[in-house]
Amino acid sequence: MAGNSIGKEFVVTTFGESHGSAIGVIVDGCPAGLPLVEADFQEELDRRIPAETKIVSARIEKDIAKIFSGVFNGLTTGAPITLMVENKDVKSGDYEEIKDLPRPGQADYPARIKYGGFNDYRGGGRFSGRITVALIMAGTIAKKLLGRYNIDVLAYTLAIGDIKSEKHFSSAEIRKNRDAAATRCPDLICADKMEQAIVEAKKEGDSLGGIVECVAVNMPVGIGEPLFDTLDGDLAKVLFAVPAVKGVEFGIGFASANLRGSENNDAYKSSNGKVTTLTENAGGILGGLSSGMPILIRVAIKPTPSIAKEQKTVNVCTLENAALSVKGRHDPCIVPKAVPAIEAAVAITLADHMIRSGFMPQVIKEH
Amino acid sequence: MAGNSIGKEFVVTTFGESHGSAIGVIVDGCPAGLPLVEADFQEELDRRIPAETKIVSARIEKDIAKIFSGVFNGLTTGAPITLMVENKDVKSGDYEEIKDLPRPGQADYPARIKYGGFNDYRGGGRFSGRITVALIMAGTIAKKLLGRYNIDVLAYTLAIGDIKSEKHFSSAEIRKNRDAAATRCPDLICADKMEQAIVEAKKEGDSLGGIVECVAVNMPVGIGEPLFDTLDGDLAKVLFAVPAVKGVEFGIGFASANLRGSENNDAYKSSNGKVTTLTENAGGILGGLSSGMPILIRVAIKPTPSIAKEQKTVNVCTLENAALSVKGRHDPCIVPKAVPAIEAAVAITLADHMIRSGFMPQVIKEH
Amino acid sequence: MAGNSIGKEFVVTTFGESHGSAIGVIVDGCPAGLPLVEADFQEELDRRIPAETKIVSARIEKDIAKIFSGVFNGLTTGAPITLMVENKDVKSGDYEEIKDLPRPGQADYPARIKYGGFNDYRGGGRFSGRITVALIMAGTIAKKLLGRYNIDVLAYTLAIGDIKSEKHFSSAEIRKNRDAAATRCPDLICADKMEQAIVEAKKEGDSLGGIVECVAVNMPVGIGEPLFDTLDGDLAKVLFAVPAVKGVEFGIGFASANLRGSENNDAYKSSNGKVTTLTENAGGILGGLSSGMPILIRVAIKPTPSIAKEQKTVNVCTLENAALSVKGRHDPCIVPKAVPAIEAAVAITLADHMIRSGFMPQVIKEH
Amino acid sequence: MAGNSIGKEFVVTTFGESHGSAIGVIVDGCPAGLPLVEADFQEELDRRIPAETKIVSARIEKDIAKIFSGVFNGLTTGAPITLMVENKDVKSGDYEEIKDLPRPGQADYPARIKYGGFNDYRGGGRFSGRITVALIMAGTIAKKLLGRYNIDVLAYTLAIGDIKSEKHFSSAEIRKNRDAAATRCPDLICADKMEQAIVEAKKEGDSLGGIVECVAVNMPVGIGEPLFDTLDGDLAKVLFAVPAVKGVEFGIGFASANLRGSENNDAYKSSNGKVTTLTENAGGILGGLSSGMPILIRVAIKPTPSIAKEQKTVNVCTLENAALSVKGRHDPCIVPKAVPAIEAAVAITLADHMIRSGFMPQVIKEH
Repeated sequence: MAGNSIGKEFVVTTFGESHGSAIGVIVDGCPAGLPLVEADFQEELDRRIPAETKIVSARIEKDIAKIFSGVFNGLTTGAPITLMVENKDVKSGDYEEIKDLPRPGQADYPARIKYGGFNDYRGGGRFSGRITVALIMAGTIAKKLLGRYNIDVLAYTLAIGDIKSEKHFSSAEIRKNRDAAATRCPDLICADKMEQAIVEAKKEGDSLGGIVECVAVNMPVGIGEPLFDTLDGDLAKVLFAVPAVKGVEFGIGFASANLRGSENNDAYKSSNGKVTTLTENAGGILGGLSSGMPILIRVAIKPTPSIAKEQKTVNVCTLENAALSVKGRHDPCIVPKAVPAIEAAVAITLADHMIRSGFMPQVIKEH
Repeated sequence: MAGNSIGKEFVVTTFGESHGSAIGVIVDGCPAGLPLVEADFQEELDRRIPAETKIVSARIEKDIAKIFSGVFNGLTTGAPITLMVENKDVKSGDYEEIKDLPRPGQADYPARIKYGGFNDYRGGGRFSGRITVALIMAGTIAKKLLGRYNIDVLAYTLAIGDIKSEKHFSSAEIRKNRDAAATRCPDLICADKMEQAIVEAKKEGDSLGGIVECVAVNMPVGIGEPLFDTLDGDLAKVLFAVPAVKGVEFGIGFASANLRGSENNDAYKSSNGKVTTLTENAGGILGGLSSGMPILIRVAIKPTPSIAKEQKTVNVCTLENAALSVKGRHDPCIVPKAVPAIEAAVAITLADHMIRSGFMPQVIKEH
Repeated sequence: MAGNSIGKEFVVTTFGESHGSAIGVIVDGCPAGLPLVEADFQEELDRRIPAETKIVSARIEKDIAKIFSGVFNGLTTGAPITLMVENKDVKSGDYEEIKDLPRPGQADYPARIKYGGFNDYRGGGRFSGRITVALIMAGTIAKKLLGRYNIDVLAYTLAIGDIKSEKHFSSAEIRKNRDAAATRCPDLICADKMEQAIVEAKKEGDSLGGIVECVAVNMPVGIGEPLFDTLDGDLAKVLFAVPAVKGVEFGIGFASANLRGSENNDAYKSSNGKVTTLTENAGGILGGLSSGMPILIRVAIKPTPSIAKEQKTVNVCTLENAALSVKGRHDPCIVPKAVPAIEAAVAITLADHMIRSGFMPQVIKEH
Repeated sequence: MAGNSIGKEFVVTTFGESHGSAIGVIVDGCPAGLPLVEADFQEELDRRIPAETKIVSARIEKDIAKIFSGVFNGLTTGAPITLMVENKDVKSGDYEEIKDLPRPGQADYPARIKYGGFNDYRGGGRFSGRITVALIMAGTIAKKLLGRYNIDVLAYTLAIGDIKSEKHFSSAEIRKNRDAAATRCPDLICADKMEQAIVEAKKEGDSLGGIVECVAVNMPVGIGEPLFDTLDGDLAKVLFAVPAVKGVEFGIGFASANLRGSENNDAYKSSNGKVTTLTENAGGILGGLSSGMPILIRVAIKPTPSIAKEQKTVNVCTLENAALSVKGRHDPCIVPKAVPAIEAAVAITLADHMIRSGFMPQVIKEH
């Protein structure tokens, strides 16, 4: 039991279910003296829901983040910071009829077995994509901390279905364009095609998956711990907290399996008193430690399991085979909503390791 | 600091460096009453070093596991179990000359920065592949515990370089054939080609990477915790403790990004009072919980960074560019040695979650 | 940083400051299927504030507990349970004038240094006795869980100032009388004297301390872990989360230092197939494990540091010596309010260890 | 299960049983660059066994500490440090006859129930006082780290049986005299009386307890965390890892329950730009944080449970009442041996909190 906290020094504990009264998070271990207001969270939460698009489902009332502790006079106090978003506009009636019919690809079936049927099944309950709201709020704080060291964490859509951008983006381009399109792909030509593909899949009562890429620039050298609390291991772990993630790779990842050592190794060069590498195959992590090069992560997102198309399932009470067409609001593609969640998850882990490595003081003195 | 422990109930703490006096592990939280003798560990350790092959480097003297605590009259006592293997036959002189020349692709450079040069650099020190000896010893205990529930964890080589087996293996075939070839690929025709490819790469002073697959069968439904301590998240994390891992995916993993929901979802069927799925795309994990289907993991292993071929590096004292040809014993491909380490890492995490989920008693009564 | 969580399987994370917007708690790891409603918490919270007494300060508006997650249809779901109490009726103006004048005996001075002055100093902020509201809410859940095994945790006042009850109470008497008097002493004659002593101290602008005793009956044998996570060690640790605690002892505690082994050892006897002890000097814990006998804990509570009497202090800005008379509402004796907090703290730790020892299932099936 | 580790950044994991092959410890999280040799440990271990005295039992062969990892060229590397002492000269035959007869006051009975009889019962196994050898080795490292900040941790005997020193010692006196007498009491006149009392108790086949006091000077202000990871809470917890501890108090401890606020509060004064207190009743800890004043801890040690005098017990197989006279080597008073263990335990926790509070760098640069 008990797995709803992560981090060792920057400790994030989340709570809430899709159709419960609220989604929230406690961040314990944030240094004192960090400027923080509710608007900081609002900005990040709003990124979840692209304006004017047909590709994302939205609750009618906007999520409003509220601070309950840990901030005094607009600055963090060193005490645990609690954030909460009320769940409004829930339509729980939709779920009664499928209570005993687990939706394929969702956590419904194992959750029912694990919790003996006592789990809140409405909207997936604790397993809903909605819980990323908590991640995003914690990530907001993490990103503000990292920003003080010019560390920038940027996630964006690389592929949706079979449409994949082959462009290489600079941090500046990503920052400029990643929120421009509803699909969160900074390659705006691709972004358009992705949007069309999603609309089409939706028409057919189906859904699409995709790949999110995340880059973190300006990390110092040597962040991370051997042997188990490696930077890549801890990043991989936190990323599986984002629902629908099925794979994580660093740098060229699985492609490195196919190269020779002489091709895959990133050779060092010295210039202007700085050690960098000629290539970036390792994704900025060696032996579990940051190498000083940009950290590059790619995350596989499966297609939304909830689809209108009829699927085979089993009535878990009668054990009879059954058919199911999932009703209610569902994103035909969750990749765009996953983007800020992945960014947040990565930021949370980098902030935790920065503190663990002694890079962040307990008190922020310069403002 | 301090990242050398993993697990919450089955807690594994490892120690030792490549050229230090020993490699060891403490396993805290193993139920009392489990039969355990030194020969159990020996068998698993011996799997690291294939007999009669040119593709793996070996220290001349065999690793001998010794129990130092936690076992009494051939049974575990409930107290922490300590295992140690002495490091014999080390050739540390090889490393003096490269002390200031970080090997590309190794942890040398970030480790030196992190530890201010005090780290034991010989043979990679704490970052050496040799530390998997500790993982394997802990995994031996985990596998014995899982075996009591008929849970079998089986890792094997799926690909080395561009040679990839396309066969689908049953558990029985894997069990039978995975240790038959030095490359640990149960597709014995592929295994031969893999061995040849390694020999060729070695001749050229180069190295190869590959992909290891691991399957765990007979896991009960509902093991794992939301939201952060998911089964996939914890498995991913522990796998990055195996040096050279660059990516982890579950089920069809990255390929799911390319499917539609209707294709990717594993539909349920009922037969003989058991709920199973028609396909196995999810790799046996949904919402971070085991679904009862076989758990399937694929792990990308990069080519051995230490190669004889000359590489560019930088002298970290003078910051001058330099060239380096790594001498000493090095595996031209570490995939075969990674196989038992990956099996061990997976078993450790499954055992921990089985205990956390209340599936294992504190005391094993039937023998 | 980051110390606001406790427990390994029954994990309690608290937040909130005395004059912030709320005090709250997340309980992660409670088994699914436990009946739980807001009234359960209300009953325990109300025990903090005795009705009709002059010896306890009270905010005018009553604390109202509200459930935000983890409960569905009146039963726990297995997801984290979040409880919150709004802070109403705060008088923060009282604290502005003493912002730079640390109150002797309070955390003001070390907190200011630790957090660089960013901590919320109003009412002691995070260090206020008010945070025991969170402990009590978590303890309510723990006590309900323990109650399923007939484990009863009962705290009561043993001494206030120099008035000490010498009676030995049975569990039944404690249960019946401990909340009868405002001082929470089940020896009602003593209770009256204690109340008078408090009233007198208050008149003089002074305060009193005391001793709280807590007994836990019906614990099974063998709960607790060697070497560090001992039952007594974990109980002692959690008890220091109750502000003003200065000492903890088990059984006869410090008095055992003065006995001979032959006097102090609790000899065993067998009767009706049960092993018990002839005496109860050990307080029900041997080698960090529960022995099956009642667990007996005594906790020293210092007198309330906030007193009207003038005290010497230092202006931390100017470093000039100064005098201070603490204004505002203050309890002349916090012992009565500490009683339910101590009971809660003990219950939290016993519940955690019961789960760790495998005594509680993940799902509660019988209701 | 699994409670053999303590600390969050300076993590100590111990292993070993009284009559197993070794006692050892892993310290994970020690900064790199700390000078450390085997002689450092030897010196502390030797303090356990006073030379030429009849009051302490000793194995004939001396404990020899050996470093197995984490040290390179006489300096710590940042990797986990492993220390081990072989168990020589064990007389396990002594225990066979009492296998089913739990010794009153020892962990025998609850341990047998907890571990289903699989625990190593010889000499108390994992519950033996001998495991303090591991604490002392970890404490050696902690004390060296603290010493770099002039923090001195000094434990000594305050009372044995009814002989209690009423002297107040300066740090210098303690340092000078605490190891002068076999009883470890720096009041040498008292020390003599204590020794005589022990000799007498031994003659009668009985044993004595006592009180150990520990002072830590030069701790910075603000070390510790609210709410659960308080400095006093964490110190109390670790102290219960020392077998036979039955109570812990800080400053005047239980005596504060009897004072008024105006008497108990330590008033502040300013002198030479430093804030100190006029009295030291709080023991250097307020609100769980260090106040900058000396930390003062008192620990109650019960009399050795193993005595030659006949005691009542129960045969746990037959459930018949029985009598027991404990044979073998036993300390008639364990207080002297507890002194270095308590010092070590306190140092371990202070070092952990110093690192957590950001006071210690990852790398020690000046030597």
